[in-house]
Amino acid sequence: MSASDKQMSDFESRRRFLKGAGLVAMASTGIATGAATTALAEVAAGAPHRLASGRGVEDFYGAHQAGIVTPQQRSSYFAAFDLTTGKREDVIAVLKAWTDAAARMARGQAVSSAAAVVSAPSPKQGQTDEYQAEQAPASSVDSGETEGLSAERLTITFGFGASLFSKDGHDRFGLATRRPEALIDLPEFAGDRLVDAQTGGDLSVQACADDPQVAFHAMRQLARLADGVVQIRWVQAGFLPNTAKGETPRNLMGFKDGTHNPPVTDSPAMARCVWAGDEGPGWMRGGSYAVFRRIRIALEHWDRMSVAFQEQTIGRSKVSGAPLGKTKEFDQADFSASDKDGNLVIPENSHLRLASAVNSGTEILRRGYSYNDGVSFVAERWPPWRQGLEYDAGLFFVCYQRDPRTGFVKLFERMAKLDMLNQFVTHVGGGLFACPGGIAPGEYIGQRLFT
Amino acid sequence: MSASDKQMSDFESRRRFLKGAGLVAMASTGIATGAATTALAEVAAGAPHRLASGRGVEDFYGAHQAGIVTPQQRSSYFAAFDLTTGKREDVIAVLKAWTDAAARMARGQAVSSAAAVVSAPSPKQGQTDEYQAEQAPASSVDSGETEGLSAERLTITFGFGASLFSKDGHDRFGLATRRPEALIDLPEFAGDRLVDAQTGGDLSVQACADDPQVAFHAMRQLARLADGVVQIRWVQAGFLPNTAKGETPRNLMGFKDGTHNPPVTDSPAMARCVWAGDEGPGWMRGGSYAVFRRIRIALEHWDRMSVAFQEQTIGRSKVSGAPLGKTKEFDQADFSASDKDGNLVIPENSHLRLASAVNSGTEILRRGYSYNDGVSFVAERWPPWRQGLEYDAGLFFVCYQRDPRTGFVKLFERMAKLDMLNQFVTHVGGGLFACPGGIAPGEYIGQRLFT
Repeated sequence: MSASDKQMSDFESRRRFLKGAGLVAMASTGIATGAATTALAEVAAGAPHRLASGRGVEDFYGAHQAGIVTPQQRSSYFAAFDLTTGKREDVIAVLKAWTDAAARMARGQAVSSAAAVVSAPSPKQGQTDEYQAEQAPASSVDSGETEGLSAERLTITFGFGASLFSKDGHDRFGLATRRPEALIDLPEFAGDRLVDAQTGGDLSVQACADDPQVAFHAMRQLARLADGVVQIRWVQAGFLPNTAKGETPRNLMGFKDGTHNPPVTDSPAMARCVWAGDEGPGWMRGGSYAVFRRIRIALEHWDRMSVAFQEQTIGRSKVSGAPLGKTKEFDQADFSASDKDGNLVIPENSHLRLASAVNSGTEILRRGYSYNDGVSFVAERWPPWRQGLEYDAGLFFVCYQRDPRTGFVKLFERMAKLDMLNQFVTHVGGGLFACPGGIAPGEYIGQRLFT
Repeated sequence: MSASDKQMSDFESRRRFLKGAGLVAMASTGIATGAATTALAEVAAGAPHRLASGRGVEDFYGAHQAGIVTPQQRSSYFAAFDLTTGKREDVIAVLKAWTDAAARMARGQAVSSAAAVVSAPSPKQGQTDEYQAEQAPASSVDSGETEGLSAERLTITFGFGASLFSKDGHDRFGLATRRPEALIDLPEFAGDRLVDAQTGGDLSVQACADDPQVAFHAMRQLARLADGVVQIRWVQAGFLPNTAKGETPRNLMGFKDGTHNPPVTDSPAMARCVWAGDEGPGWMRGGSYAVFRRIRIALEHWDRMSVAFQEQTIGRSKVSGAPLGKTKEFDQADFSASDKDGNLVIPENSHLRLASAVNSGTEILRRGYSYNDGVSFVAERWPPWRQGLEYDAGLFFVCYQRDPRTGFVKLFERMAKLDMLNQFVTHVGGGLFACPGGIAPGEYIGQRLFT
């Protein structure tokens, strides 16, 4: 039996299987099978269902989107989507459905059954009735794996990629003139090894929650609600350690990461460096520009370096997080200090010095997560001539800023060339997205862009 | 410039970079660069360093290995390793190093600097001195990313695969006669699509903790300590939702998973179904056999099915978890009940009926985790003719049992053929490992096998 015969046979078995079990008919008539089903039907119809009590609820509505200055949750699931439709009204329908679903999920409620953009899959040429028959219009029903969980501080943050405004010179949705100047095409930085399959996208969605199942659940509902109009382009899960409140979490290199972040409670700082103002289009007012970078870290190599070398690379002490030459994490770095041999205490090409030289510390708000995607094969043809599996792990760098040209681009251009850390990290994917301002109940995300 | 020239040039730049920064010399002489380094040196030398207080510490020592009847933690990181050595003493050295490190990490301490099996990488033909010089003997230093975290109930559970005892007919370590009968070669089950790169291995290690960073950290230290003697074969991260205490967590299909598990507090049940007794070799007494299965779930398809169909497939109500026809999760299923049309309320091929038919409910202890590894490309050449990215997500099934022949194999053989759930799940990897009994301080894991 050839492989394709085998597959066909498998497929036929599956068909017979279903028929034999008498389930094709059952599913097609949509018979509910017991009292318990009713509860989920109620859930699907929109009744609140969780442990409720408002525990861990972040407000979805407001002047700004949630998930930007929200204190970081422990889990993240990011997805970039491409639109497969050419119709402006489909895009609006997706954004409406996503707004409704996101607002509900942020309250700890299941997705409403009325929310799907495409209510039933459209039959394709040659499609058998039987397959259709197995499928209830269930693509609008919440998949249920967060039933019984709290909202876990879920936030869902939406963004628009440059390709939403025009793609290959084509004004797909009549938005070409609405593209903000700040939504630039990111330059190719030194050392960039961006993989197309993990870069860009028409729409970005980042779901963050204190529970990985809640974050993934949110994305799964959104993807499903817009099935037939959007498709997933790339995804990235992430996590943070259970660091004590008020302490800076450590990244997978073992160093504290985020020490110089402006405090999210500092509204003037946020207004200055995170929120878009009157300088751009009205629909971006109160919004922010998000840069995502999937940064793979050569953990095996990093782990072979002495702690002293690692500290010279970062410019900070590993345990305390203090700038070299100081003792406490938040001590001011002394960039002019040198040791008795005349060498700079904080080396010329250290991460800290390069970051500080161009950054007052308040231009961007970092909100990244570690990622850990298993192992992949790597062969090194140079010393130490290793080959085998290496961790595909690192940092899913996320930052928000008022303008990427004065934020990430300015900050990273020099670091990409000179940072000693570059020996151990590779940027393999990412994107820049314009996250529109927040909305009030009754509006949909990005509404001001479409009106 | 050709691609390989470019790579060579990159490599040369990196070399010059290091030299220019004056760091090659620094690293080679191992000069510590500041007071803060001392703290990590102390950590590496073995001083306790975490927030301490014993919060969340699971005892590493005991009659049984931890991580089997330990109440499930929220994160898991599994790795299967292959031994690259042919020497029995190397295997023993690995197990000793792993025992020491695991015991320390379970207490919330950093890995000791004395623990590495191979203290420095061995130079290979043509290897430049400079590369060596950059590397301190730092491969024994804890990578530090759990500094400041609690132990988070970390458990590390070790197992031996059949290939440890003999491989391709070769008695690699003089252990061939010590292989337990119960450590069978798992049969190929109906529907199996096991990928070699995610199956088997000489040694298994599962790290579980309430924090993903703590679980991954543990594996990273173990892999590094044994570098040069073992290599990673495959890995799998997993998670559980933040389900309220005492409730059954839901899997990614939205159903409660683990309802019929015997309670881990029921010592007689554990003795009967989990712990190996006198029936096998002495070194396995108090141990258990672990079956791991990476089960990919076609979530997109599952989500298209009506809840009624899903419930028929599982044999339980989705919201309550009750057997169909009943109202509460722990209600006894009535397998003889039929509806007014004469159809069985719990269908013939439902997951629940098949599992119950051959399983008293106490033969295996399930301890699985959901996994979520992003998306991968899938093309369907049959209805509904979809192609695109699908979630590589599902269940990392883990079960422990006294004997897999009367446990997983007996249970799964029939289900693999008939379970309606098989339409939506594919077993794509896994393994069977003999997890030896627990140890006392001063012993090493598996010691009785080697003496």
